[in-house]
Amino acid sequence: MAKESSSSIPCTPFLKDELDIVIPTIRNLDFLEMWRPFFQPYHLIIVQDGDPSKTINVPEGFDYELYNRNDINRILGPKAACISFKDSACRCFGYMVSKKKYIYTIDDDCFVAKDPTGKEINALEQHIKNLLTPATPHFFNTLYDPFRDGADFVRGYPFSLREGAQTAVSHGLWLNIPDYDAPTQLVKPRERNTRYVDAVLTIPKGTLFPMCGMNLAFDRELIGPAMYFGLMGDGQPIGRYDDMWAGWCTKVICDHLGLGIKTGLPYIWHSKASNPFVNLKKEYKGIFWQEELIPFFQSAVLSKECTTVQKCYIELSKQVREKLGKIDPYFTKLADAMVTWIEAWDDLNPPKGAAEVPNGPAKGK
Amino acid sequence: MAKESSSSIPCTPFLKDELDIVIPTIRNLDFLEMWRPFFQPYHLIIVQDGDPSKTINVPEGFDYELYNRNDINRILGPKAACISFKDSACRCFGYMVSKKKYIYTIDDDCFVAKDPTGKEINALEQHIKNLLTPATPHFFNTLYDPFRDGADFVRGYPFSLREGAQTAVSHGLWLNIPDYDAPTQLVKPRERNTRYVDAVLTIPKGTLFPMCGMNLAFDRELIGPAMYFGLMGDGQPIGRYDDMWAGWCTKVICDHLGLGIKTGLPYIWHSKASNPFVNLKKEYKGIFWQEELIPFFQSAVLSKECTTVQKCYIELSKQVREKLGKIDPYFTKLADAMVTWIEAWDDLNPPKGAAEVPNGPAKGK
Repeated sequence: MAKESSSSIPCTPFLKDELDIVIPTIRNLDFLEMWRPFFQPYHLIIVQDGDPSKTINVPEGFDYELYNRNDINRILGPKAACISFKDSACRCFGYMVSKKKYIYTIDDDCFVAKDPTGKEINALEQHIKNLLTPATPHFFNTLYDPFRDGADFVRGYPFSLREGAQTAVSHGLWLNIPDYDAPTQLVKPRERNTRYVDAVLTIPKGTLFPMCGMNLAFDRELIGPAMYFGLMGDGQPIGRYDDMWAGWCTKVICDHLGLGIKTGLPYIWHSKASNPFVNLKKEYKGIFWQEELIPFFQSAVLSKECTTVQKCYIELSKQVREKLGKIDPYFTKLADAMVTWIEAWDDLNPPKGAAEVPNGPAKGK
Repeated sequence: MAKESSSSIPCTPFLKDELDIVIPTIRNLDFLEMWRPFFQPYHLIIVQDGDPSKTINVPEGFDYELYNRNDINRILGPKAACISFKDSACRCFGYMVSKKKYIYTIDDDCFVAKDPTGKEINALEQHIKNLLTPATPHFFNTLYDPFRDGADFVRGYPFSLREGAQTAVSHGLWLNIPDYDAPTQLVKPRERNTRYVDAVLTIPKGTLFPMCGMNLAFDRELIGPAMYFGLMGDGQPIGRYDDMWAGWCTKVICDHLGLGIKTGLPYIWHSKASNPFVNLKKEYKGIFWQEELIPFFQSAVLSKECTTVQKCYIELSKQVREKLGKIDPYFTKLADAMVTWIEAWDDLNPPKGAAEVPNGPAKGK
């Protein structure tokens, strides 16, 4: 297993100049030390989610920029309202200010996992492989990702579909603490994920999935503006649905634009379960709302005029306002924020050739 | 890995009285010997695909019934025309004459595989686990089958969908020789599948997949009449699409009836690649036709009146005649055979309480 990667040097900086690592706050000082062999060649964007007066000490040798709430307010002005405060959902600000083609985002309680041979897993390398090879959303391949070494399309896979689709998102998994909701955490406090599934697969077109932001990579140029993590945390009635919201919007838009989303490898080691009681409070409304959100996203159709991610997202925000606004005023506010997010994205990411430099954040190295 | 099964005795005869093993011919005398610890507790139905005058020597101790072409002709009369001759597609006759709830079908070049710990895999046991636990066709679970030990539904999986759907089909995979089409065999003659992926997952609703008949189990009561392996072999313009045809029909019907299909574990050891030149001859027309079959099945809609598998299948046969008949006269013949198959199925499987005993086949033990 994992034979392909055995010959690679862990720190080979694939796509070094084309990928930013976005991290929402760093509470754990060991985090960057553990990832140093893998992350040091890359540029980090750290988005501090809480009190801006607190200092995050980034160890020597890392190339980073750090944004706190004051930076976000200064750079976005009134549009900063679309960025969550006191919640890791603020990480999406990092996606917006990045100038790179690819983003990898990871939580600070996620460490380097080992494959069944005991070798440390270079998560970034696997994500990049996932993103650089096509996805297969139009037909299921029973031997999983046909673009991996030692695999291919099986008998009965239509030849016209073997070119696949461009991969926009690579969703990685977690060993040790699984990504469970509060009710499941409460019911199964001791459950650990020990099963290493040596597979990468494409989520088929038309199928929704729960996208977790713990260990996630995407092609910012292909899908970036859809990766909005919504309104969570301070002053909001809901939490822990930031990545889910982004995932459902992203999946609908990828399906519409003919892009693919992969899930599976790489694993990270998720070290610590968050408090299930706190989580239940955050998730409480989401547990009910979700039952209406899923049918909404399952039946969402985007018009032919939606030829860019931005156009798709604005169209989706209208449908959110119209169809979900009746569930709770929160969704009207969220629909507004979705529009603001796209405006802010376009401000910071003008069409190429007319790029503006935002007011600089704190810089390191 | 595979911890759950380590405590089980390989030959524990799960569902002994509720499952038949259907095998299309046995050319390899080692086959049954190798499977003896696993298969001996079960009843076998062997369907001889070629010359009825040839004798198949079933080793001592197996409980079996054997049907050759003469038996099929005697039992089905003129309706025997729907059963392929000189092709392993004839196996579906075994599904029809079985009186059990579950079927496991396997090819005679498939042997017992080993898991990464070196333990022999009890394929039947895993298939039964797959069939007896629900499937999740309506939403993708990123930790794969939530009903396996050590797994569950992840955060963001809607609670209302966690009951899942009844599982109708369990599609197992193959180590060593992968199930490739002739062009891929020709291009990659040395490729072997060495990757043991420790996962079972549900093929999402609305997604087609290539169903291979090498290592396949299903719930005959739930989906049996859809498992028709079509017209292949002697006198037909196509081969090696028997299981694919059955899979596409079955998937469309399962989606319509709200049933689930799982793929992944268990693995068998596929010992021998079939001749790619012979295969190319058989597949040649299928390579072209498939490009029209897939859009046909992807867009097939069954009416609300289709409340049983039989009604679904008859409805599908009408659509085959109407929409695929123009590709080639073969599909008109196939549509006729689909109807005959259902008539024959209903003859041999009358509503409970009115069961008839067909003319007996050769019996063993």
